[in-house]
Amino acid sequence: MTLIEQATKAKAAKYKVALLSTEAKNKGILAVADALEENSTDIISANKIDMANGEKKGLSQGLLDRLKLDESRISGMAEGLRQVVELEDPIGKITEEWDRPNGLHIAKRLVPIGVVGVIYEARPNVTADVFGLCFKTGNATILKGGSDALESNKAIVKIIRDTLVKENLPVDAITLIEDTTRESTNQLMRMNGYVDVLIPRGGAGLIKSVVENASVPVIETGSGNCHIYVDYDADIDMAISVIENAKTQRIGVCNACESLVIHKDIAAKLLPALNAKLREHGVQIFADADSKQYLEGSFDATEEDFGKEYLDYIISVKTVSSVEEAIEHINKYNTGHSESIITNDETNANMFLDGIDASCVYVNASTRFTDGFEFGFGAEIGISTQKLHARGPMGLLALTSYKYTIRGNGQIRK
Amino acid sequence: MTLIEQATKAKAAKYKVALLSTEAKNKGILAVADALEENSTDIISANKIDMANGEKKGLSQGLLDRLKLDESRISGMAEGLRQVVELEDPIGKITEEWDRPNGLHIAKRLVPIGVVGVIYEARPNVTADVFGLCFKTGNATILKGGSDALESNKAIVKIIRDTLVKENLPVDAITLIEDTTRESTNQLMRMNGYVDVLIPRGGAGLIKSVVENASVPVIETGSGNCHIYVDYDADIDMAISVIENAKTQRIGVCNACESLVIHKDIAAKLLPALNAKLREHGVQIFADADSKQYLEGSFDATEEDFGKEYLDYIISVKTVSSVEEAIEHINKYNTGHSESIITNDETNANMFLDGIDASCVYVNASTRFTDGFEFGFGAEIGISTQKLHARGPMGLLALTSYKYTIRGNGQIRK
Repeated sequence: MTLIEQATKAKAAKYKVALLSTEAKNKGILAVADALEENSTDIISANKIDMANGEKKGLSQGLLDRLKLDESRISGMAEGLRQVVELEDPIGKITEEWDRPNGLHIAKRLVPIGVVGVIYEARPNVTADVFGLCFKTGNATILKGGSDALESNKAIVKIIRDTLVKENLPVDAITLIEDTTRESTNQLMRMNGYVDVLIPRGGAGLIKSVVENASVPVIETGSGNCHIYVDYDADIDMAISVIENAKTQRIGVCNACESLVIHKDIAAKLLPALNAKLREHGVQIFADADSKQYLEGSFDATEEDFGKEYLDYIISVKTVSSVEEAIEHINKYNTGHSESIITNDETNANMFLDGIDASCVYVNASTRFTDGFEFGFGAEIGISTQKLHARGPMGLLALTSYKYTIRGNGQIRK
Repeated sequence: MTLIEQATKAKAAKYKVALLSTEAKNKGILAVADALEENSTDIISANKIDMANGEKKGLSQGLLDRLKLDESRISGMAEGLRQVVELEDPIGKITEEWDRPNGLHIAKRLVPIGVVGVIYEARPNVTADVFGLCFKTGNATILKGGSDALESNKAIVKIIRDTLVKENLPVDAITLIEDTTRESTNQLMRMNGYVDVLIPRGGAGLIKSVVENASVPVIETGSGNCHIYVDYDADIDMAISVIENAKTQRIGVCNACESLVIHKDIAAKLLPALNAKLREHGVQIFADADSKQYLEGSFDATEEDFGKEYLDYIISVKTVSSVEEAIEHINKYNTGHSESIITNDETNANMFLDGIDASCVYVNASTRFTDGFEFGFGAEIGISTQKLHARGPMGLLALTSYKYTIRGNGQIRK
């Protein structure tokens, strides 16, 4: 089947999925959750092929770990789907309505986006997650997964599609592009009229490529050069605890802290103790000249360091003389993800909240909370770092659009 | 000044404009409105150069009319700005807030988008309109106007910038790209990191080019292949009146009706009378085989006719056997703009409202109401025909994004 044929089927399916009742959608998702567990041996056999290929290819241990599926991870996928069933269905909700002087009644109604294309890397659990979130919101999905997870994805999508057929639901609500060449990705990115939005999920290279090459609207996700600014009067213990958490609790994630900004008046008091704590975790520090004197064993920071998303036990440090300078530095280097200030000065806290240009701006808390579950959205399709449509953790609402429905009795425009 | 230098200045200005109070923004906009009227002779002199060049170049009467500025049109621009001052400022509004079990308080706050790039054709009034809407919402604007209006745009932007300086407001809140080559447009479309959103305003060719070439997020606007479906039991007089209005009240606009879909059971009763009414306006009809018999003097419709936005005294007619078939036909050919059903059958009205994929779906009213003023938004920056961010008439809200502000007391993630 060509990609155009596949996209045509997805487009036909979107009109059907959009009209399903919440009950029908939930029933379908629950059936898929059960089917994944019942057919786990099929998934695991397929995954073994991917794992063997990955080992032969020399994938890193980290990548192999993300690729691997076992009974417990498949149960995790099923559990994730069951949680999505519990969430409120936003589709059909009237968010505003009003009457016009000419008698027209206008209502703004939440509707599905339509066909959602997701381009991702070798994480087969994403396949089930995306299906659950998109189906719950009445969208059809075209998936382009990483080639290293092809057999796993094929097995998962086959089980989902078989279940949709059994449940008498639109089978093309989910479709997997099995051609894992770059050409098929390029074609998908330019399918205006078929695909309503593209969501890339993966590393910076993947996201950059999609942003640069897609003509279909894209929601940019995931890249996070997150800062913590420690103000002149911060609580030292709180600062150390929050920085330790944001840097070391999980290093490979987009909401981890990559750069510290320190007020000069607190440097001498904070940095030696912070250095000791970070060294317990083996964190390397790249420091500017003013902070380096307090950071034994640290390296010289270059301009480049301030713009780097290390995703590693590494952090940069920049010294500033005011909250204004901190805001300017952060707005210059951040990726619009998550930034935090540690302070007891309410005026500075407000300046930081007002002045920082990012999806999530924190006062006295770790940047690691930028996450759909932590926000209480129940699940997320990604974390948007752009300004349009959705920003920050994207829950079910981010998978909706709206339309205006207007009722009259023959009104014409004068 | 290179485009990068210009964009760097716009980016620096966006942080300042974002923090202005509603009062300061309104004061600035009112001062610009006054300055445009006070300096109208400068604008008119500049416009005379554009008009002379346009006549030499052989621009059509329609284009020349759109290009022309006189005292009354300049007052119209000023009046538009004064109306924007009256609108509620959405910036800073908290749209939702909640507490998490760990004590974090999360608030969702409306913020400006940042730098808004607008690419448009030779309509110099757009220059002032865009400034007013963007400045009111705390955005900085980079304008790329059509080359035929260059002198007029330069004069208008100079007056706005001089006023901003006089009022001690960020002058780079508005900047005009004076290099009107295609290369500068191409460069603007790929200025990720500087430009936060691009809004093309103009004909289908301009919009297609921006959608295909931009890597900056785009809001697609304007193209409208709008349908009216007349159901089996429609009120004949209402159908004729609405169709006459939607087709002939103004032909060159995106919310004009371009195609009729007629239930076969009402064709014999409706079409001869409709034909007579449309012929009063000189409307040419391209009809399918089933409707042609009732439409004296009509031409054969081809598949191509159903996908055409004529923007002229021309309309196509398609006959169907059910509301389902009407919905399928419209979803196949529409551009996601405005569609209307004329019916007395409440079930069919609801099927149409649910099933049609468009920004505005009407029951018993003209498609011509899709417009920011008609919706009560007070002004519009365009009409979005895509699914992301904004759909339909875009008022001030469409020029906002949001951020989450999160307050804690040292929370770390477990």
